[in-house]
Amino acid sequence: MKVLIVHAHPEPKSFTSSMLHRAVRTFEMQGHDVTVSDLYAMQWNPVASAADFDMRRNPDYLVYALEQRENVAANAIAPDIAAELDKLIACDLLILSFPLYWCSVPAIMKGWLDRVLVSGKVYGGVRFYDRGGMRGKRALLAYSCGGRDYMFGADGVHGEMDLMMRHMLRGTLGYAGFDVLPSFVAHHVPYIGDQARAAMLDRYGEYLTQLDRVAPLPFPTLDDFDGEMRPRERVAI
Amino acid sequence: MKVLIVHAHPEPKSFTSSMLHRAVRTFEMQGHDVTVSDLYAMQWNPVASAADFDMRRNPDYLVYALEQRENVAANAIAPDIAAELDKLIACDLLILSFPLYWCSVPAIMKGWLDRVLVSGKVYGGVRFYDRGGMRGKRALLAYSCGGRDYMFGADGVHGEMDLMMRHMLRGTLGYAGFDVLPSFVAHHVPYIGDQARAAMLDRYGEYLTQLDRVAPLPFPTLDDFDGEMRPRERVAI
Repeated sequence: MKVLIVHAHPEPKSFTSSMLHRAVRTFEMQGHDVTVSDLYAMQWNPVASAADFDMRRNPDYLVYALEQRENVAANAIAPDIAAELDKLIACDLLILSFPLYWCSVPAIMKGWLDRVLVSGKVYGGVRFYDRGGMRGKRALLAYSCGGRDYMFGADGVHGEMDLMMRHMLRGTLGYAGFDVLPSFVAHHVPYIGDQARAAMLDRYGEYLTQLDRVAPLPFPTLDDFDGEMRPRERVAI
Repeated sequence: MKVLIVHAHPEPKSFTSSMLHRAVRTFEMQGHDVTVSDLYAMQWNPVASAADFDMRRNPDYLVYALEQRENVAANAIAPDIAAELDKLIACDLLILSFPLYWCSVPAIMKGWLDRVLVSGKVYGGVRFYDRGGMRGKRALLAYSCGGRDYMFGADGVHGEMDLMMRHMLRGTLGYAGFDVLPSFVAHHVPYIGDQARAAMLDRYGEYLTQLDRVAPLPFPTLDDFDGEMRPRERVAI
């Protein structure tokens, strides 16, 4: 299996970075092929802009997704995007590894998604969810956060974590066609001691060895919608 | 009323940029004081890093939120963050104006949130939701997207848009203590003609003149939770 881990943390000695190292070691011990994109170390540029395109379909008016499609097809997309796109296309499993910033990924990782999940390859037209460009691949969020687990339960103060992360799980990874596996969440990390952290890393490593036994999250199938994306049942009424 | 509009679009001639201009004109005609942070024009740096801090509580290990708190208190936070924080503290209404990228804000705007919504001023400890630092202020998302409105209904292919945007509405703006007003969403923008766009801009302008009549979205009150953020009813059982 080819694993791509996209990682973003501004502190190389952080717990989240230890999660990265544990993941790499775990997969390599299983004989898998692991590639890491460490976005802070790479000084990844997160800003989608006209500078991403060597040629322009419309030089006077930037429609970012349109230029993505055209520039990827013409091998004219910025080299940093092209390199990441190659890694993405090659992988069987994508892991996004990050600390939770405002109930989402840090900006540097959002900019990886904005720039690398290109129209044409990853999605486009009615190619999303179970027809998305990434179908056949699996994806997983692995993140740390400050809150305790019960704060993100159904009756917790923030409601369910997966609802808070719906834009990532469904709106991004599910939309792109990945089979999205249940997230690994390391709770309350800034406030716990070394022993609890070590146990959490063990739990993470163990989870990564059992991914074949985990059912992906349920998302819509486009079979239930017509060509205009209206629910088929409704149309039949 | 002081209005801060934080805007992010890579194309100055875009429809979303027209929304910005309409908002500015509408508020100024009403005699309000409008400040715009146009993130692409400002070449805003979205990457939270150690470079944001002129002094370090812990120079060997970066805990970003901790250094935010300390550096804001010591007036040692990066000047670009300090300038935005001043605008934020001064405003009565915050509008985030953007095109939807992967069911969220573009990375450059995520980096405004990551860097400017600082621990200590905006949130911290048990200061969130109705005890958040931004209480008394209102906030609003105004965004464009490619999908049609029915795709984001309760039985739409993507489910409800506000659920997809929960990380922003509740996890970010609500958490920070803002009264969050219903979003203005411009649907299907890349595929509609000039007339439909003009009508949409009119609808946006009209909405902005009626904000006083709009009820904010409901979020939890911390009165319902104990000091450990467990639901009070549960504790009483």
